Amino acid sequence: MHRVLLREVIVDVPSEKSDATRRFWAGALGGTVRPLTEFPEFAALENPAALPHLGFQDIGNDAARFHLDIETDDIEAEVARLAALGAVVEQRRDHWVVMRDPAGLLFCLLPPESDEFAERSRVVD
Amino acid sequence: MHRVLLREVIVDVPSEKSDATRRFWAGALGGTVRPLTEFPEFAALENPAALPHLGFQDIGNDAARFHLDIETDDIEAEVARLAALGAVVEQRRDHWVVMRDPAGLLFCLLPPESDEFAERSRVVD
Repeated sequence: MHRVLLREVIVDVPSEKSDATRRFWAGALGGTVRPLTEFPEFAALENPAALPHLGFQDIGNDAARFHLDIETDDIEAEVARLAALGAVVEQRRDHWVVMRDPAGLLFCLLPPESDEFAERSRVVD
Repeated sequence: MHRVLLREVIVDVPSEKSDATRRFWAGALGGTVRPLTEFPEFAALENPAALPHLGFQDIGNDAARFHLDIETDDIEAEVARLAALGAVVEQRRDHWVVMRDPAGLLFCLLPPESDEFAERSRVVD
């Protein structure tokens, strides 16, 4: 038994559109763009008018897309559970695992960091 | 002055993957898929383990993607404000307007329906 919570939408944009896109979403929803010092390709949009958390990733020359971040307190158990439901592992990183849903859409599994995890996550098994 | 709130992530999938993808996300996050009778291409995922609302759209033969739904109590004022920030109108429907952000990513503006709008939306002008 472990817990899961879909926390965040990440706006993945090519480098050449990164600044304009970060400015746009900060203007659209309010909030402040805060670069993540430990992961320089990422930034957070702090305090937006939004139910999910919002973040940005510079993806170089790839095509723009959204991806979703799911928090879980047992990443390997969740990888196995979601694989059994039809997802596939795309990439393993030190701190998270990238997967694709049955339609090919990207999402990541990562450890709990949000204030909401304790209250809003749900037990799965 | 009007108000905005990013409410929802919509999972847009081609028809042939629609059932499998809806089942996957219902299993991943819990909750129940509820078709929207007035818009048969759409369904809601009720009560998922997620900060945003989740929904599904059957997009026929198009490529899978996520899009975002933003609630606002003045759609035309918000269309104009977001266009000034760099977004473009993609399509106008009876109940919502489809726009693209500066990177080309899709989002919709629609009237407030969520329980959270009164408390979580923010004033913009």
